[in-house]
Amino acid sequence: MKLIRFGNIGNERPGVLLEDGRRIDVSHLFEDYNESFFNNDGLNKLEIYIDSTLEYTEVGNDVRLGSPVSMPSKIICIGLNYVAHAKESGMAIPTEPVVFFKATSSICGPFDGLTMPKGGEKVDWEVELSVVIGKEASYIEESEAYDYVAGYLLHNDYSERAFQLERDGQWVKGKSCDTFAPLGPFLATKDEIEDVHNLNLWLDVNGKRTQNGNTSDFIFNIHHIVSYLSNFMTLLPGDVISTGTPPGVGLGFDPPVFLKEGDIVEYGIDGLGTGKQIVTAYKK
Amino acid sequence: MKLIRFGNIGNERPGVLLEDGRRIDVSHLFEDYNESFFNNDGLNKLEIYIDSTLEYTEVGNDVRLGSPVSMPSKIICIGLNYVAHAKESGMAIPTEPVVFFKATSSICGPFDGLTMPKGGEKVDWEVELSVVIGKEASYIEESEAYDYVAGYLLHNDYSERAFQLERDGQWVKGKSCDTFAPLGPFLATKDEIEDVHNLNLWLDVNGKRTQNGNTSDFIFNIHHIVSYLSNFMTLLPGDVISTGTPPGVGLGFDPPVFLKEGDIVEYGIDGLGTGKQIVTAYKK
Repeated sequence: MKLIRFGNIGNERPGVLLEDGRRIDVSHLFEDYNESFFNNDGLNKLEIYIDSTLEYTEVGNDVRLGSPVSMPSKIICIGLNYVAHAKESGMAIPTEPVVFFKATSSICGPFDGLTMPKGGEKVDWEVELSVVIGKEASYIEESEAYDYVAGYLLHNDYSERAFQLERDGQWVKGKSCDTFAPLGPFLATKDEIEDVHNLNLWLDVNGKRTQNGNTSDFIFNIHHIVSYLSNFMTLLPGDVISTGTPPGVGLGFDPPVFLKEGDIVEYGIDGLGTGKQIVTAYKK
Repeated sequence: MKLIRFGNIGNERPGVLLEDGRRIDVSHLFEDYNESFFNNDGLNKLEIYIDSTLEYTEVGNDVRLGSPVSMPSKIICIGLNYVAHAKESGMAIPTEPVVFFKATSSICGPFDGLTMPKGGEKVDWEVELSVVIGKEASYIEESEAYDYVAGYLLHNDYSERAFQLERDGQWVKGKSCDTFAPLGPFLATKDEIEDVHNLNLWLDVNGKRTQNGNTSDFIFNIHHIVSYLSNFMTLLPGDVISTGTPPGVGLGFDPPVFLKEGDIVEYGIDGLGTGKQIVTAYKK
């Protein structure tokens, strides 16, 4: 299944993107795609509804799409998970996963647009595959990690490189601005993706291909990442884990290239759809 | 007012600690002390209820206390905000606030006990004053920051120093283990605290004083921190901002001292009550 959330910002409702392309509303069945949904067997209930129902409540294809998941408890990101991206960033190839958080207040829909933060002159893109956790995970083994995965979604992990790397302290400052985490267009349940470790991912800026990779190039695969993280913190249903970006970010160009007002960023991953942001400057 | 949450883990209800020491239940009025509560003028409504009511529903003083706030969207921590603590940690004195996140899944009640993570041999304490945000804050000035503060609470920002400093990457790995963020015993609304920048804070391990500081020694004061953070991310009602720890953490001893099973950690801040954890080893 492909789960969507649709409607105005802050008032999204849960829905499904059917195989024939129709979007349907399931808000009469579920409050939202949140921790409680995943925790209470929501995915199975949703599947039974889809399989057993003859008439759906359709939603127009012009409706706004929000993030496919509602306010996760955390967005955990894996840094430098492709060798070539670590090299272009001038950083060491990690010997174990590099972990950082993004504020969940940075989440937005996949077509909402990117707003540059005030004073932010080094805004950069990072197309990433994200994992959505399906049930609470603490100290789990790699061999059982797949049982804890609900599905996958597309994420553009925006960064402001000066905030991230040139200001005192940790990366979180450059990762958490509003609109820095467009998620979706949909959450694909794990059964939809035949081999999550062999998916092409790409990103264009103003029509020019900048990122072009494949998840087969992960340094740490998803089983390892989910198990690894569960040794440091409890993963809650609905939590989002972003698996790192392939080479081709703006920081890696010589000289570096950063986004400016009016730029158009388009990107996608095999089986997980596409996203697009138009860049606007900060205006109060 | 002093806001408490009481009851079993995961089923806490909102209450108030009255001036005469009685604990009362207000769960018939409010679902919980969450983003919606603060956003919908909950503090004012609660005050009106307290002032206008003659008979309360009392709760026994033996009931368990949980965190005074329910699942904030984020716990933002300021690192190295006391000069002497930066020095004992062997780190530079920051020129602007050092910012990191703790997973909200690390939150627990102030007397629940600390569970050491599996493989964690360098668990360390940090008594801190935390600010709770009362309304959404984005790009706010220092001069208006106080308007966005709901109140203050006591926090013991536990860390596993090897996870934090000796493993690849960012501090979050050593800050986010379950039970690493005991909050409370209560949230004191800001009117309860005459001068938040002149409060003693202390921490004892097994009855021996290890930390002894005063918030007048902050490098960055609360107005600056709240305004500063609001330039990097939107602060949501109920968000917790922890303001750093004074000197006297285990890492600062020569040789360093870390917690072991059976240790007793007690701590407090003027006007914000006390907390206590008994340390237990990891057991699956």
